[in-house]
Amino acid sequence: MPASKQRLSVETLRWKNGRLEMIDQRALPSEVHYLSYDSAAGVAEGIRSMVVRGAPAIGCAAAYGVALEALRLQHAAASEFSAQLEAGFSVLAASRPTAVNLFWALARMRNVWQNCSGGTPTQTASMLLAEAHAVRAADIEINRRMGRHGAALLEDGARVLTHCNAGALATAGYGTALGVIRAAIEAGKKVSVFADETRPFLQGARLTAWELAQDNIPVTLIADNAAGFLMSRGEIDAVIVGADRVAANGDVANKIGTYTVAVLAQRHRIPFYVAAPLSTIDTGIASGADIPIEERNADEIRGYGELRWAPQDIPARNPVFDVTPADLVTALITEKGVMRAPDAGKIGKLLEENPG
Amino acid sequence: MPASKQRLSVETLRWKNGRLEMIDQRALPSEVHYLSYDSAAGVAEGIRSMVVRGAPAIGCAAAYGVALEALRLQHAAASEFSAQLEAGFSVLAASRPTAVNLFWALARMRNVWQNCSGGTPTQTASMLLAEAHAVRAADIEINRRMGRHGAALLEDGARVLTHCNAGALATAGYGTALGVIRAAIEAGKKVSVFADETRPFLQGARLTAWELAQDNIPVTLIADNAAGFLMSRGEIDAVIVGADRVAANGDVANKIGTYTVAVLAQRHRIPFYVAAPLSTIDTGIASGADIPIEERNADEIRGYGELRWAPQDIPARNPVFDVTPADLVTALITEKGVMRAPDAGKIGKLLEENPG
Repeated sequence: MPASKQRLSVETLRWKNGRLEMIDQRALPSEVHYLSYDSAAGVAEGIRSMVVRGAPAIGCAAAYGVALEALRLQHAAASEFSAQLEAGFSVLAASRPTAVNLFWALARMRNVWQNCSGGTPTQTASMLLAEAHAVRAADIEINRRMGRHGAALLEDGARVLTHCNAGALATAGYGTALGVIRAAIEAGKKVSVFADETRPFLQGARLTAWELAQDNIPVTLIADNAAGFLMSRGEIDAVIVGADRVAANGDVANKIGTYTVAVLAQRHRIPFYVAAPLSTIDTGIASGADIPIEERNADEIRGYGELRWAPQDIPARNPVFDVTPADLVTALITEKGVMRAPDAGKIGKLLEENPG
Repeated sequence: MPASKQRLSVETLRWKNGRLEMIDQRALPSEVHYLSYDSAAGVAEGIRSMVVRGAPAIGCAAAYGVALEALRLQHAAASEFSAQLEAGFSVLAASRPTAVNLFWALARMRNVWQNCSGGTPTQTASMLLAEAHAVRAADIEINRRMGRHGAALLEDGARVLTHCNAGALATAGYGTALGVIRAAIEAGKKVSVFADETRPFLQGARLTAWELAQDNIPVTLIADNAAGFLMSRGEIDAVIVGADRVAANGDVANKIGTYTVAVLAQRHRIPFYVAAPLSTIDTGIASGADIPIEERNADEIRGYGELRWAPQDIPARNPVFDVTPADLVTALITEKGVMRAPDAGKIGKLLEENPG
């Protein structure tokens, strides 16, 4: 059954009984279960520990984190409410450094809060929850629009490589890179996917393979090491990835290994597409060199989950994002259309025309 | 304690009580144990199932496989001996397709057998065992010579990236790529190593990290995906890898992912060295396009060991070698010296001067 426009095959985050529920992405695909959150600190921990990941999904989660905190505090005195809600913003902002959507969502929530300055805590909480719902609904709609724009770039029969998971699970639904693939299939094209397994967290093996299989989209899993070999044999027609942050000049921070795929694609003259909403563009960052790159625990490199296969205590480096320079990006796909050869001028103009 | 010239810190294969013992590389580093072999079929299964791996080590194992088979059959009638020993050659030749050292070692053993045509099976078996011992001893000596030649290429303080395991465990001892690093350290240089973990079989995480730690050589483990990031940050000064087969034009078949590292190194103007004995050069293969590339079971991609993290039965591709074109190879290091910018002319001349 092809992905339908009416249906989300995967619900990444949902609002249920006054709480935020998030599918536990660490347990997928062997277990499909939801964890429930009722505070900013809880959601921040969920982001930090990667229950939820993917830049747009992190943004949605953070928006709900603020709303939950406001609801939790709504019967407190106004000054107490303000101080504690401020602390909630701080703990959410500190959860992960690289994805800009987190900060974008927090700024949006802060804006709502400031516009509520005359209201009671209960009224503010209610407005913040409405805004979180709006962030989530807009994300899905944006992904569908991005998908329609990007679908035109894929030819019938295209074999598309993707890295990490820029799918329904990385967003409120539908996906960025995988949204483009879904839209191409909805438009009647045959598209098949090669999924890089994406060490160390294996988002490709666990999440991309799973969510595409849920939608019966043909997917073949490979080791990250095999992408170059398949390109050299002419087995890949296009690459599509998502982004955690796009600098003002078009440099793209995304999951570690993305840069490698882009370099390989350039060598093989394979188009390299980045699908990201405008909320992922950070005009406060001039170039990729200034994007903070998170380095996580070395244990994630020494094994996976509870299993350790490397020698105990062997030193390891675990940068989890890298930067792909804009000159390796064939086109940036946003909800506003396809920008070929992105650069500072084109990005500046796009954001001028579409103020956040 | 630095690696000493007198000592092998790791014994990959050893002859004990009339049997071949091989360290079980599938169990490293969590368990260090040896498996014992007494027939060609047993050794072939050890090669196939990757108890032993690494082109030179596979060559040594195959040589012992022939000797063991001859010893096993030495009391048979001459015609029976010949037929069964021939079958032993066949089963060994079919164990793995990519490493040429396997076929090189079998040709060397066949040569000894032919030179024994007047002798009894017992005499032949004895000659074959002596030849297997010679193959093993020569491999260690060749690695030490290769190391001395290659060490000159590494500057004091060099941070060297390696892929897979081209170390003591991939050879009879000392290693090819890691032999160069050992020799540089023995020559008084400070050298530190970044080891790609090397999915799917994790030879970097399990074997390279372990054997370098055994020798107190500084090693930092990384996901294969992180090599490009570290290069982009100026943290890698050189790359050294081994080879499973070098074509007559200098194209190099080696562990999957090697090609990717070579492409990245070229982009960053980092020298990319291949350390391989003459026995790895296959003049019967004109270019890398003709080298057979083994594809192994998809289960190796769906997880590791007993653990499965990908959706059950998800399709996967598992090519375990790739081809790096000669133009990406800064220098080929052999026991005869350093060949910069290898090509068909230089390789032809080298082999002419050093007939196998």
